[in-house]
Amino acid sequence: MTRTVDVAELVDRAREGQPRAVARLISLVEDASPHLREVAAALSPFTGNAQVIGLTGAPGVGKSTSTSALVRAYRERGKRVGVLAVDPSSPFSGGALLGDRVRMGEHATDPGVFIRSMATRGHLGGLSWATPQALRVLDAAGCDVVLVETVGVGQSEVEVVSLADTTVVLLAPGMGDGIQAAKAGILEIADVFVVNKADRDGADQTARDLKHMISLGRRERAEALWRPPVVKTVAARGEGVQDVVDAIDSHRAWLHEKGELDRRRARRAEAEIEAIALDDLRSRIGDLHGGSALTTLAKRVVAGELDPYAAADRLVEGVGG
Amino acid sequence: MTRTVDVAELVDRAREGQPRAVARLISLVEDASPHLREVAAALSPFTGNAQVIGLTGAPGVGKSTSTSALVRAYRERGKRVGVLAVDPSSPFSGGALLGDRVRMGEHATDPGVFIRSMATRGHLGGLSWATPQALRVLDAAGCDVVLVETVGVGQSEVEVVSLADTTVVLLAPGMGDGIQAAKAGILEIADVFVVNKADRDGADQTARDLKHMISLGRRERAEALWRPPVVKTVAARGEGVQDVVDAIDSHRAWLHEKGELDRRRARRAEAEIEAIALDDLRSRIGDLHGGSALTTLAKRVVAGELDPYAAADRLVEGVGG
Repeated sequence: MTRTVDVAELVDRAREGQPRAVARLISLVEDASPHLREVAAALSPFTGNAQVIGLTGAPGVGKSTSTSALVRAYRERGKRVGVLAVDPSSPFSGGALLGDRVRMGEHATDPGVFIRSMATRGHLGGLSWATPQALRVLDAAGCDVVLVETVGVGQSEVEVVSLADTTVVLLAPGMGDGIQAAKAGILEIADVFVVNKADRDGADQTARDLKHMISLGRRERAEALWRPPVVKTVAARGEGVQDVVDAIDSHRAWLHEKGELDRRRARRAEAEIEAIALDDLRSRIGDLHGGSALTTLAKRVVAGELDPYAAADRLVEGVGG
Repeated sequence: MTRTVDVAELVDRAREGQPRAVARLISLVEDASPHLREVAAALSPFTGNAQVIGLTGAPGVGKSTSTSALVRAYRERGKRVGVLAVDPSSPFSGGALLGDRVRMGEHATDPGVFIRSMATRGHLGGLSWATPQALRVLDAAGCDVVLVETVGVGQSEVEVVSLADTTVVLLAPGMGDGIQAAKAGILEIADVFVVNKADRDGADQTARDLKHMISLGRRERAEALWRPPVVKTVAARGEGVQDVVDAIDSHRAWLHEKGELDRRRARRAEAEIEAIALDDLRSRIGDLHGGSALTTLAKRVVAGELDPYAAADRLVEGVGG
């Protein structure tokens, strides 16, 4: 059952801001439909305009509330806003067991806001290609700002964050300590730190810890010219959200001034191309000998007859040949 | 400056349990040395005996303390134990800013324990090949049990956990709630749940939430015949650790009975071979046109002249040809 898809028309309608066209295009790229390449080619000339902001942090720091507050702030400035929630614990990504946190409801009927949840499929490379493609759709659809919300500090999250022009890392007092989080590499990815739930005990301490860490980090890496600001918010009441927007603006100005925006976007494109290429190569591996090559080689490795490198060489021969 | 490496002799000495030989072999595989393939081939006949136990959980749940308690429990049973810490926030992996959590100190001088931290290199695929190779070294060196400690529930962690025969997921009361953690996919990867810090308020509630979730999950997936037990511990005082070992044993017995152990190990080998093959293909991509192919293509994508799929096709052509 193939529905006829007029990609050119969909792209036209998406560019006019029709939410259903935007949603349909994202579905086409997310599901790796046969139209994926056609969609990518059709979008290409219209991309590169959106400001991409990544938001990340451990579960419980208030990412969804902060995202929602930022959407509101950008809407008040008249911006068209896209949200990609790649947080498996997000209420928007369908992974929620409870429906009690859906705070984005207020934006659901706003024609200037596109909200899309990206389910984490659990397969290697899933997010690394689907999310940038969804981002391209929102970009081509005329979003001035796209917020990419991810959870945690794992490798896949860092990958997704690498899509962003500006990465905002959220913390909350009493969620382990700031130092703990820093160990997991957030210092390297954060352009702006937000200590949310700043009305709670320990917020000042968390902010101080972060600032101390940042100054230590700068001593080690003199080339790190951008000093991530630490902003305190109570996102649920909208407090400090304007400061976050200001910090993001400052960072963006810095990116422009230093030519860093172009470098980041070139790196982003490299990662995106590489991920697609590797996904293609992975599926070629899967197809070798009708899909049985890997299984056969794995059995021999388990039996100790073959080491995994020798097995991999045989696979790669098959792909290259 | 090449040091002469007698791989065969190193493997002999590692099999005799000499820690320096074990450490040196892990370095050889971890650093992707020119001897990597030779080491892999030499180890291959001696692998497949170790019981591999994965431990994962968010920062702050007490993973290191729990790992240390399990090492003690297995040592008391006369087992030779290996530990691979792939937790970037672990005190063993060199990422620690503070040295205050080094609780494995007690095992440092035990000749029956090998502890190795795997630094997360931050590059895609880094852990996915280095960790299984280190595991093979510990396995060939005669470890009866290898504990693989990872943080979080991100994609890379799931990948590492996929190495394990039995995966233990740790939670603690008051770290967000159990449901929250469950959303992030831990229900699918956990063979044993441990609620650590069970002397704290909310431990019973967390355990109840987990059990409820498990029963919901089972209703959805009738084929999931193993019902993950929920064990409460206070690892810092050694309480409940015996129950964890018993739960792991029960799961292992189930794996054997169902033939699931062989299937898991075959899947593990498949993932390992594929990761090595993709890493090889990735480096071929990096080498194309003296390393400039990807950069050039990325520039054209940023400029909107080329879409990322068309760019990826050109890369793959280069690799295949």
